[in-house]
Amino acid sequence: MKKSISGALSRRRFLGQGAALVGAGGLAAITSSPARAGEPLEVQPWMTSPGAGLSEHGALARHAGDVKRTFIRSQPGTTGSGASRTPLEALEGIITPSALHFERHHSGVPDIDPAKHRLLIHGMVRRPLVFDIDSLKRYPMVSRIHFIECSGNSLQMYSPKPLPLKCGEMHGLVSCSEWTGVPLRILLDEAGIEPGAYWLVAEGADAASVSRSIPIDKAMDDAMVALFQNGESLRPENGFPVRLLLPGYEGNMNIKWLRRIKVVPTPAMTKDETSRYTDLQPNGKALMFTFAMGVKSVITRPSPGLTLKAPGFWEISGLAWSGSGAIRRVEVSSDGGSNWQEAQLSAPVLPRALTRFRMPWRWDGRATVLKSRATDETGAVQPTRDALIGEHGSNVIFHYNAIQAWGVEANGEVKNVYA
Amino acid sequence: MKKSISGALSRRRFLGQGAALVGAGGLAAITSSPARAGEPLEVQPWMTSPGAGLSEHGALARHAGDVKRTFIRSQPGTTGSGASRTPLEALEGIITPSALHFERHHSGVPDIDPAKHRLLIHGMVRRPLVFDIDSLKRYPMVSRIHFIECSGNSLQMYSPKPLPLKCGEMHGLVSCSEWTGVPLRILLDEAGIEPGAYWLVAEGADAASVSRSIPIDKAMDDAMVALFQNGESLRPENGFPVRLLLPGYEGNMNIKWLRRIKVVPTPAMTKDETSRYTDLQPNGKALMFTFAMGVKSVITRPSPGLTLKAPGFWEISGLAWSGSGAIRRVEVSSDGGSNWQEAQLSAPVLPRALTRFRMPWRWDGRATVLKSRATDETGAVQPTRDALIGEHGSNVIFHYNAIQAWGVEANGEVKNVYA
Repeated sequence: MKKSISGALSRRRFLGQGAALVGAGGLAAITSSPARAGEPLEVQPWMTSPGAGLSEHGALARHAGDVKRTFIRSQPGTTGSGASRTPLEALEGIITPSALHFERHHSGVPDIDPAKHRLLIHGMVRRPLVFDIDSLKRYPMVSRIHFIECSGNSLQMYSPKPLPLKCGEMHGLVSCSEWTGVPLRILLDEAGIEPGAYWLVAEGADAASVSRSIPIDKAMDDAMVALFQNGESLRPENGFPVRLLLPGYEGNMNIKWLRRIKVVPTPAMTKDETSRYTDLQPNGKALMFTFAMGVKSVITRPSPGLTLKAPGFWEISGLAWSGSGAIRRVEVSSDGGSNWQEAQLSAPVLPRALTRFRMPWRWDGRATVLKSRATDETGAVQPTRDALIGEHGSNVIFHYNAIQAWGVEANGEVKNVYA
Repeated sequence: MKKSISGALSRRRFLGQGAALVGAGGLAAITSSPARAGEPLEVQPWMTSPGAGLSEHGALARHAGDVKRTFIRSQPGTTGSGASRTPLEALEGIITPSALHFERHHSGVPDIDPAKHRLLIHGMVRRPLVFDIDSLKRYPMVSRIHFIECSGNSLQMYSPKPLPLKCGEMHGLVSCSEWTGVPLRILLDEAGIEPGAYWLVAEGADAASVSRSIPIDKAMDDAMVALFQNGESLRPENGFPVRLLLPGYEGNMNIKWLRRIKVVPTPAMTKDETSRYTDLQPNGKALMFTFAMGVKSVITRPSPGLTLKAPGFWEISGLAWSGSGAIRRVEVSSDGGSNWQEAQLSAPVLPRALTRFRMPWRWDGRATVLKSRATDETGAVQPTRDALIGEHGSNVIFHYNAIQAWGVEANGEVKNVYA
């Protein structure tokens, strides 16, 4: 089997010629042991007596490993403002288990009694309406798989020197779920929007009353009043009993514990869009209302924390996403960016959803740098870190979407590098 | 807005004319209250002080309701043979939360130490191989969303009289997850299949050593050695640390706790394919090796346990699936089968995955019968109960895939009926 210059293996060739790869000392040499003829497998104790019984609600295996959300500056149990991150490096596929969806709260997680919670739609409407949760559940619903990404995701990458963090510790303020709820458009149609109304203000029922201004075009397009996450009720930290979902828009606009939508002519300039969530530029002015998250990707395996124990075959696997639509292409380089090859995208490739990419790779045992670069359906391409900082400076803490480089050292360690 | 004969509303017309439906006394009259001008929403206690802190692993809301797997003949904690079912009527979308994936065990759930677990591939191969779990995780992987359905799902519908059970209690031996693992073909290629080998025997590491014969064509097509379920490790009751996934094939063939694959010339006639999992026909002979599950659908809402509190708008929502490919069409009748309308299918519509369908419906308050009828991409159409039993008799307990009828009574109660 031929190797490319960069050591990456053509996926098509690879999958078509597994046997050839074995013959070339590929998989077999590193991943399995020849079985000795006639030697039986050891009979383990769990094969000799009945196992545990049925259960009403399952749990992870005792030996499944300690996979949990991670905290950088925030500590577990912190109330008030804080964040916890999805351990991207430990997960596979595109669906984030609800228990591991990232958190970002401005005043903790409210303990809401759904029987008492109300959603008010008012302002420039013909008939202001109040909904309770049971009523909302009677409306026509839609189900869609979408990511949510905090605008502050990856902010550690603005640091002048690369920080020794794991993939999820830097990039884990993004998660992806199957959301089900009522198209916001149906509720707004029922209330009847008056002429001259171009914005909404959405407000949460947490103690911080997080509030954001939202263009009415987005509200009438794909916005959803979400009630379910991955099949069951929203999790408390994701807005139980009801949140706003604005597919592709920065996380904080997807107002959790949604209590009020006011239809207005102009943006409300809430504290959450003036004192924070603006992007300070080199000229001292701040960009406001950067809604759609940029096209982005990250290799989740190999990534820091995993040590390559030996040269040979290692699959490169990662995630790509864009707030502007579907991912069209992910390219991977295993030589620091000199050569790029197109990775395979796992179906389904959905708009504004995480997309899993994979690339077979044979490590030759020498130090190198791995990178991924995503392109979305609008043609937007993930920038380099230098280009991003060149354009927006490094006073900004939001909307970092540059190419991530992982250095692989000769001893197999994987590190965050600027390269 | 015009109504069809059956009272079902055209979805396209509905979504395009939400306001018109309101005007016709549709949604508004039943689902929301007008807000009195100037009257503020009540400020609830959870808005007045910071909420709960961040957490490493999230949990369902305290008020999320008691959604759990259900047991018919088996009891929670039963070891040995038994099943628990997914509460389909309480869930939305297509992804089943892993904690609620159905269970079917023949000797309980083994408590496997993954460090000691091995997978052996042997028999008619050039080089028998033994894999440990860490080695398997180095192979190229794929992620795909697929259902698994127990061949005994819905067996209560063979009862001469309709049983008063909920949707999940009858049909909840089907669940759908995003699975990630190694294509079985890659491992078989590495072992090198010898000429004349047309079958595999796959064996589990539970105390029952569940074993099934599998055609090698399926193994080389889309079979997967699965390691991850919905992003994280397989759940213990779903085969941790490794299971076989045979997309679309009856559940018991998707061998959990996979320990051994033997390549053989002919089916092995294991106890699990002779003493059970055969379909006794009216002529006294039994069908064997009915692999792919038939095309099927069920309305999950409304369904028994939900009482329609008043006439007016109710969305009909349900699930469809086929072991032979993607769902092409789901038709819904709200008048007992006299008239049918095509339901909307929620994207993504994936082969051998659950597919969510929806249909707007206005209940006129009179007794009626709701039905759904799925067609898959091969053109196979879900049969009526009479046709299914006419062909296969009622001695069989497996492979029930007939149209489900839910009776709606004038008082709003929903019941399982044969109609």
